[in-house]
Amino acid sequence: MQASFDNLRIVLVAPRNPLNIGAAARAMSNFGVTQLRVVNPYEVAFRDAKSAVGASPVLAAAKEFSSVAEAVADCVLVAGTTAIRHRQLQQPVRLLAQGARSIRARLLRSPVAVLFGSEKWGLSNDSLSHCHWVLHIPTRDEHQSVNLGQAVAVCLYEFVRAGGRGATREAPKPLGRERLATVGVVERIATALLAALRLSEYINPKTGQLAEEKLRRMIRRLAMEEADAEVFLGMLHKILWKLEQKEKTKS
Amino acid sequence: MQASFDNLRIVLVAPRNPLNIGAAARAMSNFGVTQLRVVNPYEVAFRDAKSAVGASPVLAAAKEFSSVAEAVADCVLVAGTTAIRHRQLQQPVRLLAQGARSIRARLLRSPVAVLFGSEKWGLSNDSLSHCHWVLHIPTRDEHQSVNLGQAVAVCLYEFVRAGGRGATREAPKPLGRERLATVGVVERIATALLAALRLSEYINPKTGQLAEEKLRRMIRRLAMEEADAEVFLGMLHKILWKLEQKEKTKS
Repeated sequence: MQASFDNLRIVLVAPRNPLNIGAAARAMSNFGVTQLRVVNPYEVAFRDAKSAVGASPVLAAAKEFSSVAEAVADCVLVAGTTAIRHRQLQQPVRLLAQGARSIRARLLRSPVAVLFGSEKWGLSNDSLSHCHWVLHIPTRDEHQSVNLGQAVAVCLYEFVRAGGRGATREAPKPLGRERLATVGVVERIATALLAALRLSEYINPKTGQLAEEKLRRMIRRLAMEEADAEVFLGMLHKILWKLEQKEKTKS
Repeated sequence: MQASFDNLRIVLVAPRNPLNIGAAARAMSNFGVTQLRVVNPYEVAFRDAKSAVGASPVLAAAKEFSSVAEAVADCVLVAGTTAIRHRQLQQPVRLLAQGARSIRARLLRSPVAVLFGSEKWGLSNDSLSHCHWVLHIPTRDEHQSVNLGQAVAVCLYEFVRAGGRGATREAPKPLGRERLATVGVVERIATALLAALRLSEYINPKTGQLAEEKLRRMIRRLAMEEADAEVFLGMLHKILWKLEQKEKTKS
């Protein structure tokens, strides 16, 4: 029914409640989305969810990852989710209805990941640093935190809706615009650049984590094309090699 | 915030699972809907839901009825819900997105009830006979049955969305696309990167001119934001400084 949903990956980061994991998988099954990925789940919860009576085939086929970076490596677009309005987010925020149109358009050609945080804390800043932008479910200010299973259902409903009759399709990208680099390559660029910045003493070890998240967000904003990303990665590796040579000479 | 939602009554008919009752109440709280009515609930479930830790004030204020007729007596419009496509419904069926617009319009002046059936059977024909028409959540044919709490969340999201809050309201926070960097800054980035690539022997002096043009085009394709460009330039200058140190040591 939804051929393009083959490209959609639903990623649950650090979920703790087997009922919520099951509910997310059920909503996926309802709306025709099959690829569930789970990052660092509370192990007992994940096992319980999988073995529950009536567990969805989606859940049985779920893949487990130990980092967000690995879980989204094959995707060209990564969207986070949040119900929180006042949080000081570093990423652009799009209302669900708007963001869903972009996601639908992208899904026609490339893999897209949508991240959902843990029941208690939502997505951490580190997880968010892997996102190009963040989807916002419009809840009221006094009660913003949406149940995980319900958040997944609402988002998937909007994705289906955005592809339906009467919905304004986003115009396909003009020709000439090449395929975007996967976040796997983008992450390798971030890693190489970070290493170069450490060797150049640009990054202070004390504030390294902050710098890392900031840099990851920055690189994602660049929306690099696939071919450019490879060239850029090659450049960085060469610079890195030279910087490392220097270190060796010193010691 | 949602004055017109004062007129909306969410009616759960014969719910059996306290978690689902709680989830429905939570979604109502998220989306600013306060009037929950419950018809012939499984008594233990209703009591458990009400006494659960973190139970919503919506649930505490829920009213219990012994028949659908009584629960919807003050309403001018009653809509049922179903995910089932092939059922021989006697009532007109509207897609959720369409039906939500009618409901929003009606809510401006009069009370409206939306009915949700039990987890197992949905709404009975008897319950449906109280409905003017039926809302359909567009699920796939092979897995139509939506979890009760998720169905309530999806419907309420669509009601909020139909009111313009989800669709047209301005996205929260800054975060629009920032100002793009001027070509002056972009050119300085290209120059610094070129210098770093020469020192790293990435660029062969013989083909340097070609590499320079290629690299300049690439950097422009990145469409860097102003603030990012300054940061990036600072990084490159630091890396360059380190590479030059090495050269000096050599000579």
